[in-house]
Amino acid sequence: MIELFHAPTPNGWKVSIMLAECELPFTLRRVKLNEGDQFRPEFLEISPNNRIPAIVDHEPQDTAGPLPVFESGAILTYLAEKTGRFLPSAPRARTAVNQWLMWQMSGLGPMLGQHGHFKLYAKEKLPYAIERYAAEAKRLYAVLDAQLERTGDCIAGDYSIADIACFPWVMTHKAQGFTLDDWPHVRRWYAALRARTRLQEGLAVGRDEVSPTGQFDDRARHNLFGAAAAGVERRKGQP
Amino acid sequence: MIELFHAPTPNGWKVSIMLAECELPFTLRRVKLNEGDQFRPEFLEISPNNRIPAIVDHEPQDTAGPLPVFESGAILTYLAEKTGRFLPSAPRARTAVNQWLMWQMSGLGPMLGQHGHFKLYAKEKLPYAIERYAAEAKRLYAVLDAQLERTGDCIAGDYSIADIACFPWVMTHKAQGFTLDDWPHVRRWYAALRARTRLQEGLAVGRDEVSPTGQFDDRARHNLFGAAAAGVERRKGQP
Repeated sequence: MIELFHAPTPNGWKVSIMLAECELPFTLRRVKLNEGDQFRPEFLEISPNNRIPAIVDHEPQDTAGPLPVFESGAILTYLAEKTGRFLPSAPRARTAVNQWLMWQMSGLGPMLGQHGHFKLYAKEKLPYAIERYAAEAKRLYAVLDAQLERTGDCIAGDYSIADIACFPWVMTHKAQGFTLDDWPHVRRWYAALRARTRLQEGLAVGRDEVSPTGQFDDRARHNLFGAAAAGVERRKGQP
Repeated sequence: MIELFHAPTPNGWKVSIMLAECELPFTLRRVKLNEGDQFRPEFLEISPNNRIPAIVDHEPQDTAGPLPVFESGAILTYLAEKTGRFLPSAPRARTAVNQWLMWQMSGLGPMLGQHGHFKLYAKEKLPYAIERYAAEAKRLYAVLDAQLERTGDCIAGDYSIADIACFPWVMTHKAQGFTLDDWPHVRRWYAALRARTRLQEGLAVGRDEVSPTGQFDDRARHNLFGAAAAGVERRKGQP
Protein backbone atom coordinates (compact mmCIF):
# COMPACT_ATOMS: atom_id res chain seq x y z
CA MET A 1 0.00 0.00 0.00
CA ILE A 2 1.12 3.55 -0.71
CA GLU A 3 0.48 6.42 1.65
CA LEU A 4 -0.12 9.68 -0.25
CA PHE A 5 0.53 12.98 1.54
CA HIS A 6 -1.58 15.31 -0.53
CA ALA A 7 -3.17 18.71 -0.81
CA PRO A 8 -5.35 19.89 -3.69
CA THR A 9 -2.69 21.77 -5.66
CA PRO A 10 -1.17 21.14 -9.10
CA ASN A 11 1.78 19.28 -7.58
CA GLY A 12 -0.52 17.22 -5.39
CA TRP A 13 -2.72 16.28 -8.33
CA LYS A 14 0.23 15.11 -10.41
CA VAL A 15 0.71 12.25 -7.98
CA SER A 16 -2.95 11.41 -7.38
CA ILE A 17 -3.40 11.28 -11.19
CA MET A 18 -0.36 9.00 -11.52
CA LEU A 19 -1.63 6.65 -8.82
CA ALA A 20 -5.04 6.50 -10.51
CA GLU A 21 -3.51 5.95 -13.96
CA CYS A 22 -1.35 3.12 -12.56
CA GLU A 23 -4.34 1.70 -10.63
CA LEU A 24 -2.22 1.69 -7.49
CA PRO A 25 -4.30 1.67 -4.30
CA PHE A 26 -3.33 4.32 -1.76
CA THR A 27 -4.22 5.73 1.63
CA LEU A 28 -4.89 9.46 1.49
CA ARG A 29 -3.22 11.60 4.13
CA ARG A 30 -4.54 15.11 3.83
CA VAL A 31 -1.95 17.81 4.53
CA LYS A 32 -3.82 21.00 5.41
CA LEU A 33 -1.46 23.69 4.19
CA ASN A 34 -3.53 26.58 5.52
CA GLU A 35 -3.27 25.08 8.98
CA GLY A 36 0.46 24.39 8.81
CA ASP A 37 0.34 20.57 8.72
CA GLN A 38 3.41 20.72 6.45
CA PHE A 39 5.54 21.87 9.39
CA ARG A 40 4.73 18.93 11.68
CA PRO A 41 7.86 16.94 12.57
CA GLU A 42 6.33 13.63 11.42
CA PHE A 43 5.74 15.15 7.96
CA LEU A 44 9.27 16.61 7.79
CA GLU A 45 10.63 13.11 8.39
CA ILE A 46 9.12 12.17 5.03
CA SER A 47 9.39 15.50 3.24
CA PRO A 48 12.33 17.51 4.63
CA ASN A 49 11.50 20.40 2.28
CA ASN A 50 8.08 20.70 4.01
CA ARG A 51 6.22 20.61 0.74
CA ILE A 52 3.55 18.31 -0.60
CA PRO A 53 3.24 15.88 -2.27
CA ALA A 54 5.11 13.02 -0.67
CA ILE A 55 4.52 9.30 -0.55
CA VAL A 56 5.58 6.36 1.55
CA ASP A 57 5.67 3.06 -0.28
CA HIS A 58 5.00 0.36 2.31
CA GLU A 59 5.63 -2.40 -0.22
CA PRO A 60 8.85 -1.39 -1.97
CA GLN A 61 10.67 -3.85 -4.22
CA ASP A 62 13.58 -4.25 -1.79
CA THR A 63 11.25 -5.21 1.13
CA ALA A 64 13.60 -3.19 3.35
CA GLY A 65 10.89 -1.22 5.15
CA PRO A 66 8.82 1.83 4.22
CA LEU A 67 10.31 3.91 1.41
CA PRO A 68 9.54 7.66 1.51
CA VAL A 69 9.76 9.92 -1.56
CA PHE A 70 9.26 13.68 -1.82
CA GLU A 71 9.24 16.05 -4.85
CA SER A 72 6.45 15.39 -7.34
CA GLY A 73 8.87 14.72 -10.21
CA ALA A 74 10.79 12.14 -8.19
CA ILE A 75 7.53 10.48 -7.11
CA LEU A 76 6.31 10.25 -10.72
CA THR A 77 9.63 8.70 -11.75
CA TYR A 78 9.62 6.30 -8.79
CA LEU A 79 6.09 5.10 -9.53
CA ALA A 80 6.84 4.82 -13.25
CA GLU A 81 9.89 2.66 -12.53
CA LYS A 82 7.97 0.62 -9.93
CA THR A 83 5.12 -0.15 -12.32
CA GLY A 84 6.94 -0.02 -15.65
CA ARG A 85 4.36 2.48 -16.92
CA PHE A 86 4.43 5.98 -18.48
CA LEU A 87 8.24 6.18 -18.74
CA PRO A 88 9.96 4.12 -21.45
CA SER A 89 13.12 2.22 -20.61
CA ALA A 90 14.92 2.68 -23.97
CA PRO A 91 17.34 5.62 -23.53
CA ARG A 92 16.09 7.71 -26.48
CA ALA A 93 12.38 7.50 -25.65
CA ARG A 94 13.14 7.73 -21.93
CA THR A 95 15.17 10.92 -22.17
CA ALA A 96 12.55 12.46 -24.49
CA VAL A 97 10.07 12.10 -21.63
CA ASN A 98 12.51 13.03 -18.91
CA GLN A 99 13.53 16.32 -20.51
CA TRP A 100 9.90 17.48 -20.63
CA LEU A 101 9.34 16.29 -17.06
CA MET A 102 12.35 18.41 -16.05
CA TRP A 103 11.01 21.30 -18.13
CA GLN A 104 7.78 21.13 -16.15
CA MET A 105 9.61 20.84 -12.81
CA SER A 106 12.07 23.66 -13.43
CA GLY A 107 10.06 25.95 -15.70
CA LEU A 108 6.31 25.57 -16.13
CA GLY A 109 5.63 24.78 -12.46
CA PRO A 110 7.86 27.34 -10.73
CA MET A 111 7.10 30.13 -13.21
CA LEU A 112 3.30 29.63 -13.17
CA GLY A 113 3.70 29.46 -9.41
CA GLN A 114 5.41 32.87 -9.35
CA HIS A 115 2.83 34.34 -11.73
CA GLY A 116 0.03 33.05 -9.52
CA HIS A 117 1.69 34.53 -6.47
CA PHE A 118 2.17 38.03 -7.86
CA LYS A 119 -1.06 38.19 -9.84
CA LEU A 120 -3.46 36.50 -7.42
CA TYR A 121 -2.06 36.18 -3.92
CA ALA A 122 0.47 38.90 -3.10
CA LYS A 123 -0.99 41.77 -1.10
CA GLU A 124 1.24 44.25 -2.96
CA LYS A 125 0.45 44.39 -6.68
CA LEU A 126 3.77 44.86 -8.46
CA PRO A 127 3.37 45.45 -12.22
CA TYR A 128 7.03 44.62 -12.95
CA ALA A 129 6.77 41.19 -11.31
CA ILE A 130 3.33 40.39 -12.73
CA GLU A 131 4.53 41.28 -16.24
CA ARG A 132 7.79 39.38 -15.82
CA TYR A 133 6.01 36.15 -14.94
CA ALA A 134 3.14 36.65 -17.38
CA ALA A 135 5.70 36.97 -20.20
CA GLU A 136 7.56 33.87 -19.04
CA ALA A 137 4.31 31.91 -18.66
CA LYS A 138 3.29 32.85 -22.21
CA ARG A 139 6.71 31.88 -23.49
CA LEU A 140 6.43 28.49 -21.80
CA TYR A 141 2.92 27.91 -23.17
CA ALA A 142 4.22 28.76 -26.64
CA VAL A 143 7.09 26.26 -26.23
CA LEU A 144 4.62 23.56 -25.21
CA ASP A 145 2.32 24.49 -28.08
CA ALA A 146 5.15 24.18 -30.62
CA GLN A 147 6.10 20.80 -29.15
CA LEU A 148 2.53 19.49 -29.33
CA GLU A 149 2.25 20.77 -32.89
CA ARG A 150 5.22 18.53 -33.73
CA THR A 151 4.34 15.52 -31.62
CA GLY A 152 0.55 15.35 -31.86
CA ASP A 153 -1.34 13.71 -29.00
CA CYS A 154 1.25 13.67 -26.25
CA ILE A 155 4.22 15.77 -25.22
CA ALA A 156 6.87 13.10 -25.88
CA GLY A 157 5.94 9.83 -27.55
CA ASP A 158 3.15 7.94 -25.81
CA TYR A 159 1.18 9.29 -22.85
CA SER A 160 3.76 9.67 -20.10
CA ILE A 161 4.72 11.27 -16.81
CA ALA A 162 5.59 14.39 -18.83
CA ASP A 163 1.90 14.79 -19.72
CA ILE A 164 0.83 13.93 -16.17
CA ALA A 165 3.24 16.53 -14.76
CA CYS A 166 2.15 19.33 -17.09
CA PHE A 167 -1.61 18.78 -17.02
CA PRO A 168 -2.46 20.09 -13.53
CA TRP A 169 -0.40 23.22 -14.11
CA VAL A 170 -2.10 23.94 -17.44
CA MET A 171 -5.35 23.47 -15.53
CA THR A 172 -4.56 26.75 -13.73
CA HIS A 173 -4.77 28.76 -16.96
CA LYS A 174 -8.21 30.27 -16.38
CA ALA A 175 -7.52 31.29 -12.78
CA GLN A 176 -4.26 32.90 -13.94
CA GLY A 177 -6.01 34.89 -16.68
CA PHE A 178 -4.80 32.96 -19.73
CA THR A 179 -6.88 31.42 -22.50
CA LEU A 180 -5.81 28.26 -24.29
CA ASP A 181 -7.29 29.76 -27.47
CA ASP A 182 -3.85 31.36 -27.80
CA TRP A 183 -2.21 27.92 -27.97
CA PRO A 184 -4.48 25.62 -30.00
CA HIS A 185 -2.26 22.54 -29.74
CA VAL A 186 -2.16 22.88 -25.97
CA ARG A 187 -5.96 23.32 -25.97
CA ARG A 188 -6.45 20.13 -28.01
CA TRP A 189 -4.03 18.15 -25.80
CA TYR A 190 -5.65 19.52 -22.65
CA ALA A 191 -9.15 18.53 -23.77
CA ALA A 192 -8.02 15.03 -24.74
CA LEU A 193 -6.31 14.44 -21.40
CA ARG A 194 -9.24 15.84 -19.47
CA ALA A 195 -11.46 13.17 -21.00
CA ARG A 196 -9.37 10.33 -19.50
CA THR A 197 -11.39 8.53 -16.83
CA ARG A 198 -8.48 7.72 -14.55
CA LEU A 199 -7.03 11.20 -14.81
CA GLN A 200 -10.41 12.49 -13.61
CA GLU A 201 -10.30 10.03 -10.71
CA GLY A 202 -6.91 11.41 -9.73
CA LEU A 203 -8.15 14.97 -10.02
CA ALA A 204 -11.09 14.22 -7.75
CA VAL A 205 -8.69 13.55 -4.86
CA GLY A 206 -8.88 16.42 -2.38
CA ARG A 207 -11.46 18.35 -4.42
CA ASP A 208 -13.68 18.61 -1.35
CA GLU A 209 -10.89 20.57 0.37
CA VAL A 210 -10.69 23.31 -2.25
CA SER A 211 -11.98 26.58 -0.84
CA PRO A 212 -14.90 27.85 -2.95
CA THR A 213 -13.44 31.35 -3.05
CA GLY A 214 -9.78 30.38 -3.41
CA GLN A 215 -9.02 33.14 -0.91
CA PHE A 216 -6.66 32.87 2.03
CA ASP A 217 -7.24 34.14 5.55
CA ASP A 218 -4.42 35.59 7.65
CA ARG A 219 -3.52 32.23 9.18
CA ALA A 220 -3.25 30.65 5.74
CA ARG A 221 -1.12 33.55 4.47
CA HIS A 222 1.18 33.14 7.45
CA ASN A 223 1.65 29.43 6.71
CA LEU A 224 1.84 29.76 2.94
CA PHE A 225 3.72 33.00 2.32
CA GLY A 226 4.80 34.42 5.68
CA ALA A 227 7.22 33.69 8.45
CA ALA A 228 6.17 30.06 8.83
CA ALA A 229 6.72 29.36 5.13
CA ALA A 230 10.14 30.99 5.30
CA GLY A 231 11.12 28.65 8.11
CA VAL A 232 11.85 31.54 10.47
CA GLU A 233 9.92 30.06 13.36
CA ARG A 234 11.32 26.60 12.80
CA ARG A 235 14.87 27.91 12.91
CA LYS A 236 14.05 29.55 16.21
CA GLY A 237 13.17 26.11 17.52
CA GLN A 238 9.41 26.66 17.61
CA PRO A 239 7.08 24.08 16.11
CA MET B 1 31.57 12.09 -28.99
CA ILE B 2 29.23 14.44 -27.17
CA GLU B 3 28.52 17.98 -28.30
CA LEU B 4 27.97 20.30 -25.36
CA PHE B 5 25.97 23.50 -25.89
CA HIS B 6 27.15 25.57 -22.99
CA ALA B 7 27.33 28.98 -21.41
CA PRO B 8 29.09 29.80 -18.14
CA THR B 9 26.06 29.69 -15.84
CA PRO B 10 25.16 27.37 -12.95
CA ASN B 11 23.06 25.17 -15.23
CA GLY B 12 25.79 25.07 -17.86
CA TRP B 13 28.40 24.08 -15.29
CA LYS B 14 26.29 21.21 -13.97
CA VAL B 15 26.78 19.45 -17.28
CA SER B 16 30.43 20.35 -17.87
CA ILE B 17 31.17 19.08 -14.34
CA MET B 18 29.27 15.83 -15.05
CA LEU B 19 31.16 15.29 -18.30
CA ALA B 20 34.47 15.88 -16.53
CA GLU B 21 33.53 13.60 -13.62
CA CYS B 22 32.54 10.84 -16.08
CA GLU B 23 35.69 11.46 -18.17
CA LEU B 24 33.52 11.75 -21.25
CA PRO B 25 35.19 13.67 -24.08
CA PHE B 26 33.09 16.44 -25.59
CA THR B 27 33.12 19.18 -28.19
CA LEU B 28 32.31 22.57 -26.70
CA ARG B 29 29.73 24.68 -28.53
CA ARG B 30 29.64 28.10 -26.92
CA VAL B 31 26.15 29.64 -26.79
CA LYS B 32 26.57 33.36 -26.35
CA LEU B 33 23.45 34.34 -24.41
CA ASN B 34 24.15 38.07 -24.49
CA GLU B 35 24.24 37.90 -28.27
CA GLY B 36 21.07 35.81 -28.61
CA ASP B 37 22.66 32.58 -29.88
CA GLN B 38 19.96 30.72 -27.95
CA PHE B 39 17.33 31.91 -30.43
CA ARG B 40 19.04 30.54 -33.53
CA PRO B 41 16.87 27.94 -35.30
CA GLU B 42 19.63 25.32 -35.29
CA PHE B 43 19.85 25.62 -31.50
CA LEU B 44 16.06 25.44 -31.08
CA GLU B 45 16.10 22.14 -32.96
CA ILE B 46 18.11 20.74 -30.05
CA SER B 47 16.72 22.83 -27.22
CA PRO B 48 13.14 23.91 -28.03
CA ASN B 49 12.95 25.86 -24.76
CA ASN B 50 15.85 28.05 -26.02
CA ARG B 51 17.84 27.54 -22.86
CA ILE B 52 21.29 26.13 -22.24
CA PRO B 53 22.62 23.59 -21.49
CA ALA B 54 21.88 20.99 -24.15
CA ILE B 55 23.85 18.08 -25.52
CA VAL B 56 23.86 15.92 -28.61
CA ASP B 57 25.18 12.41 -28.07
CA HIS B 58 26.65 11.29 -31.39
CA GLU B 59 27.33 7.78 -30.05
CA PRO B 60 24.11 6.79 -28.30
CA GLN B 61 23.53 3.20 -27.18
CA ASP B 62 20.86 2.59 -29.81
CA THR B 63 23.14 3.70 -32.69
CA ALA B 64 20.05 5.30 -34.24
CA GLY B 65 21.64 8.65 -35.02
CA PRO B 66 22.43 11.73 -32.92
CA LEU B 67 20.46 11.95 -29.68
CA PRO B 68 19.73 15.47 -28.39
CA VAL B 69 18.88 16.23 -24.75
CA PHE B 70 17.91 19.55 -23.14
CA GLU B 71 17.23 20.51 -19.48
CA SER B 72 20.23 20.13 -17.19
CA GLY B 73 18.48 17.62 -14.92
CA ALA B 74 17.57 15.39 -17.87
CA ILE B 75 21.12 15.61 -19.21
CA LEU B 76 22.60 14.61 -15.84
CA THR B 77 20.22 11.64 -15.67
CA TYR B 78 20.93 10.65 -19.28
CA LEU B 79 24.69 10.73 -18.76
CA ALA B 80 24.38 8.88 -15.43
CA GLU B 81 22.38 6.13 -17.09
CA LYS B 82 24.73 6.04 -20.09
CA THR B 83 27.83 5.64 -17.94
CA GLY B 84 26.36 3.87 -14.91
CA ARG B 85 27.83 6.55 -12.66
CA PHE B 86 26.56 8.95 -9.98
CA LEU B 87 22.98 7.56 -9.94
CA PRO B 88 22.40 4.19 -8.26
CA SER B 89 20.16 1.63 -9.94
CA ALA B 90 18.57 0.16 -6.79
CA PRO B 91 15.19 1.89 -6.33
CA ARG B 92 15.74 3.12 -2.75
CA ALA B 93 19.17 4.67 -3.33
CA ARG B 94 18.11 5.88 -6.77
CA THR B 95 15.03 7.73 -5.57
CA ALA B 96 17.01 9.23 -2.67
CA VAL B 97 19.24 10.89 -5.28
CA ASN B 98 16.42 11.69 -7.67
CA GLN B 99 14.32 13.55 -5.09
CA TRP B 100 17.22 15.89 -4.31
CA LEU B 101 17.95 16.36 -8.00
CA MET B 102 14.30 17.36 -8.43
CA TRP B 103 14.55 19.60 -5.37
CA GLN B 104 17.44 21.40 -7.03
CA MET B 105 15.63 21.63 -10.38
CA SER B 106 12.32 22.86 -8.99
CA GLY B 107 13.47 24.79 -5.93
CA LEU B 108 17.09 25.74 -5.38
CA GLY B 109 17.75 26.66 -9.02
CA PRO B 110 14.59 28.58 -9.90
CA MET B 111 14.37 30.37 -6.55
CA LEU B 112 18.06 31.43 -6.47
CA GLY B 113 17.49 32.46 -10.09
CA GLN B 114 14.60 34.73 -9.07
CA HIS B 115 16.58 36.13 -6.14
CA GLY B 116 19.49 36.89 -8.42
CA HIS B 117 17.17 38.59 -10.89
CA PHE B 118 15.49 40.89 -8.39
CA LYS B 119 18.55 41.57 -6.25
CA LEU B 120 21.22 41.92 -8.91
CA TYR B 121 19.81 42.35 -12.40
CA ALA B 122 16.35 43.95 -12.38
CA LYS B 123 16.44 47.67 -13.13
CA GLU B 124 13.58 48.26 -10.68
CA LYS B 125 14.53 47.38 -7.12
CA LEU B 126 11.42 45.88 -5.53
CA PRO B 127 11.84 45.21 -1.79
CA TYR B 128 8.84 42.85 -1.68
CA ALA B 129 10.28 40.61 -4.40
CA ILE B 130 13.85 40.74 -3.08
CA GLU B 131 12.66 39.81 0.40
CA ARG B 132 10.38 37.06 -0.89
CA TYR B 133 13.19 35.31 -2.72
CA ALA B 134 15.82 35.98 -0.05
CA ALA B 135 13.55 34.28 2.49
CA GLU B 136 12.94 31.33 0.17
CA ALA B 137 16.67 31.04 -0.63
CA LYS B 138 17.50 30.98 3.09
CA ARG B 139 14.81 28.39 3.69
CA LEU B 140 16.27 26.19 0.94
CA TYR B 141 19.82 26.57 2.25
CA ALA B 142 18.55 25.57 5.71
CA VAL B 143 16.85 22.49 4.24
CA LEU B 144 20.09 21.49 2.50
CA ASP B 145 22.06 22.15 5.69
CA ALA B 146 19.76 19.90 7.73
CA GLN B 147 20.07 17.17 5.09
CA LEU B 148 23.89 17.38 5.07
CA GLU B 149 23.90 17.33 8.86
CA ARG B 150 22.11 13.97 8.65
CA THR B 151 23.93 12.48 5.68
CA GLY B 152 27.50 13.73 6.11
CA ASP B 153 29.65 14.05 3.02
CA CYS B 154 27.07 13.99 0.23
CA ILE B 155 23.46 14.99 -0.21
CA ALA B 156 22.10 11.47 -0.74
CA GLY B 157 24.34 8.43 -0.24
CA ASP B 158 27.52 8.52 -2.34
CA TYR B 159 28.58 11.49 -4.48
CA SER B 160 25.86 11.79 -7.10
CA ILE B 161 24.12 13.95 -9.68
CA ALA B 162 22.26 15.55 -6.75
CA ASP B 163 25.57 17.01 -5.51
CA ILE B 164 26.62 17.94 -9.04
CA ALA B 165 23.30 19.73 -9.62
CA CYS B 166 23.38 21.71 -6.38
CA PHE B 167 27.06 22.71 -6.37
CA PRO B 168 27.08 25.40 -9.09
CA TRP B 169 24.01 27.06 -7.60
CA VAL B 170 25.54 27.14 -4.11
CA MET B 171 28.57 28.68 -5.83
CA THR B 172 26.45 31.81 -6.39
CA HIS B 173 26.11 32.46 -2.64
CA LYS B 174 28.64 35.28 -2.42
CA ALA B 175 27.36 37.16 -5.46
CA GLN B 176 23.84 36.86 -4.06
CA GLY B 177 24.88 38.27 -0.68
CA PHE B 178 24.72 35.09 1.41
CA THR B 179 27.42 33.59 3.61
CA LEU B 180 27.81 29.86 4.08
CA ASP B 181 28.81 30.58 7.68
CA ASP B 182 25.07 30.50 8.30
CA TRP B 183 24.89 26.87 7.11
CA PRO B 184 28.01 25.07 8.38
CA HIS B 185 27.14 21.68 6.88
CA VAL B 186 26.64 23.28 3.47
CA ARG B 187 29.96 25.12 3.91
CA ARG B 188 31.78 21.87 4.72
CA TRP B 189 30.17 20.01 1.79
CA TYR B 190 30.90 22.92 -0.56
CA ALA B 191 34.59 23.03 0.39
CA ALA B 192 34.99 19.26 -0.03
CA LEU B 193 33.38 19.28 -3.47
CA ARG B 194 35.40 22.28 -4.56
CA ALA B 195 38.58 20.32 -3.92
CA ARG B 196 37.64 17.63 -6.47
CA THR B 197 40.00 17.82 -9.45
CA ARG B 198 37.46 16.82 -12.09
CA LEU B 199 34.82 19.12 -10.72
CA GLN B 200 37.34 21.94 -11.13
CA GLU B 201 37.95 20.83 -14.71
CA GLY B 202 34.23 21.04 -15.41
CA LEU B 203 34.01 24.46 -13.77
CA ALA B 204 36.84 25.75 -15.94
CA VAL B 205 34.68 25.28 -19.06
CA GLY B 206 33.57 28.67 -20.32
CA ARG B 207 35.34 30.58 -17.55
CA ASP B 208 37.06 32.74 -20.14
CA GLU B 209 33.62 33.97 -21.27
CA VAL B 210 32.55 35.30 -17.87
CA SER B 211 32.33 39.08 -17.89
CA PRO B 212 34.69 40.52 -15.27
CA THR B 213 31.99 42.90 -14.01
CA GLY B 214 29.06 40.53 -14.30
CA GLN B 215 27.09 43.46 -15.71
CA PHE B 216 24.81 43.36 -18.72
CA ASP B 217 24.59 45.91 -21.50
CA ASP B 218 21.29 46.79 -23.18
CA ARG B 219 21.66 44.13 -25.85
CA ALA B 220 22.28 41.47 -23.24
CA ARG B 221 19.29 42.68 -21.18
CA HIS B 222 17.10 42.48 -24.28
CA ASN B 223 18.17 38.90 -24.92
CA LEU B 224 18.15 37.77 -21.31
CA PHE B 225 15.22 39.57 -19.71
CA GLY B 226 13.43 41.55 -22.43
CA ALA B 227 11.26 40.98 -25.43
CA ALA B 228 13.59 38.43 -26.99
CA ALA B 229 13.66 36.32 -23.84
CA ALA B 230 9.88 36.44 -23.67
CA GLY B 231 9.67 35.06 -27.17
CA VAL B 232 7.67 38.07 -28.39
CA GLU B 233 9.79 38.52 -31.49
CA ARG B 234 9.80 34.84 -32.26
CA ARG B 235 6.03 34.65 -32.09
CA LYS B 236 5.86 37.49 -34.55
CA GLY B 237 7.80 35.31 -36.95
CA GLN B 238 11.07 37.18 -36.65
CA PRO B 239 14.28 35.24 -36.01
